Amino acid sequence: MLLSKISEVASHGGVQGVYSHASEACRCDMTFAVFAPPQVKNGYLPVLWYLSGLTCTHANVVEKGEYRRLAAELGLIVICPDTSPRGDNIPDEAGNWQMGKGAGFYLDATQAPWSENYRMYSYVSEELPKLIGENFNADMGRQGIFGHSMGGHGAMTIALKHPDRFRSCSAFAPIVQPSTADWSAPAFQKYLGADQATWRQYDAVSLVEDGARFPEFLIDQGLADGFLQSGLRPWLFEEAVEDTDIKLTLRNHEHYDHSYYFISTFMDDHLKWHAERLVK
Amino acid sequence: MLLSKISEVASHGGVQGVYSHASEACRCDMTFAVFAPPQVKNGYLPVLWYLSGLTCTHANVVEKGEYRRLAAELGLIVICPDTSPRGDNIPDEAGNWQMGKGAGFYLDATQAPWSENYRMYSYVSEELPKLIGENFNADMGRQGIFGHSMGGHGAMTIALKHPDRFRSCSAFAPIVQPSTADWSAPAFQKYLGADQATWRQYDAVSLVEDGARFPEFLIDQGLADGFLQSGLRPWLFEEAVEDTDIKLTLRNHEHYDHSYYFISTFMDDHLKWHAERLVK
Repeated sequence: MLLSKISEVASHGGVQGVYSHASEACRCDMTFAVFAPPQVKNGYLPVLWYLSGLTCTHANVVEKGEYRRLAAELGLIVICPDTSPRGDNIPDEAGNWQMGKGAGFYLDATQAPWSENYRMYSYVSEELPKLIGENFNADMGRQGIFGHSMGGHGAMTIALKHPDRFRSCSAFAPIVQPSTADWSAPAFQKYLGADQATWRQYDAVSLVEDGARFPEFLIDQGLADGFLQSGLRPWLFEEAVEDTDIKLTLRNHEHYDHSYYFISTFMDDHLKWHAERLVK
Repeated sequence: MLLSKISEVASHGGVQGVYSHASEACRCDMTFAVFAPPQVKNGYLPVLWYLSGLTCTHANVVEKGEYRRLAAELGLIVICPDTSPRGDNIPDEAGNWQMGKGAGFYLDATQAPWSENYRMYSYVSEELPKLIGENFNADMGRQGIFGHSMGGHGAMTIALKHPDRFRSCSAFAPIVQPSTADWSAPAFQKYLGADQATWRQYDAVSLVEDGARFPEFLIDQGLADGFLQSGLRPWLFEEAVEDTDIKLTLRNHEHYDHSYYFISTFMDDHLKWHAERLVK
């Protein structure tokens, strides 16, 4: 598959790259970022996926996530995809940040007009990993996945559906049950239609209820996060895993909000969490 | 002096704040950022000034500088001022990023129409320190200063003019002789007039030639920096200090450019440089 380089910049001894390609899954050009740590010159390295939240592109976490210093030290390749299909011809709801561009929810839409391009589940879980494996010194046998908010949830659902592929999963302030949260249920309705049974495959709490398993999760949550009560509700995931063998480390942090100031504060802990499970 | 809080966000155990105030020096409202590390609750802490480069506001380094983790660990208050006066009534040259808003060069302009507001030297070296001393647990007896590009140079000139006030100075890719560099000499002409003798007080190389002294400088420079030959030219400062007692640690780094990817890579080294001279 063909890859176009948008930029490659030296950072922390490695290279922060941004690339684009014609996506088959999304039927548009897609942009993503790859941080290649210095050790990549010497061989194949573990891959850590970071999925971003509503309104973001690949660029937000690249600029504000503060992951490169420690990723370079630990020898992790960090992949940051976009959050939706992009382009002038892509369906969107202007002014609605919870639907359309920037709000792909890492699902494959089934309803018109969304189903043509909004196939972020297939894109992130199938197409992009193939592209990464073909173009970088990435050891696809050692993958971890994490993310923030909508992307934290995306990471959790993708891990739950691929426990054999991922060795580690964590999330910053994930929306744990988007099918019932105020800011995501309307999007699920539009992307997936009225039959709520089809929503369950893209909902972390429902997946666990339906038997999906992943060994352990780390979740960090700020208690000054304005979306905590209406959208995120990590306690619902805590309840869902209670009588399962899923181990959940849920850490609540006073004073922290939903921003990249929160993410960057706990980024090191997450990178270490993944490295402990990925780097041998 | 009165201070308005724009935002305060938890970060790395401390608080990243943004504040505004009516500036006497610049005769307009000015915005600046202060990172207060967690130790600030227990007493007065050293102060580290970060001066930004052309086109920046306070926000760029706050978002991309990656200074909070280590500043929190070391117990440093980090102050990030804006780079020029701001507002609809402030003189500017639309489309010229090397003059006017975002390009204050940390000098006091003497020429109309700039002299009314473009007094960033007085603002950064006199007015803002007073405001900080009155409003934060800042030990003004322990100050360091650093910055990037135009701001790296600003830090060097202010340190050279106040060797008794600052204990440490460093710079990322500073413009060491702005009075003769392509991208800054025209601004000096407009701000300060035709008499080039008056330019020397705002030019690091000229200051050293004229006898100003500061014990030691750390300068990091990327060798893939597109502005190296035409604007930055750190070797001119190296030559200027050669027969003086000024100690210069100039480190050249292959592959690195002029961006925040460069700054954030070497941020830790600079914070440690300052902490060694500020924290007892």
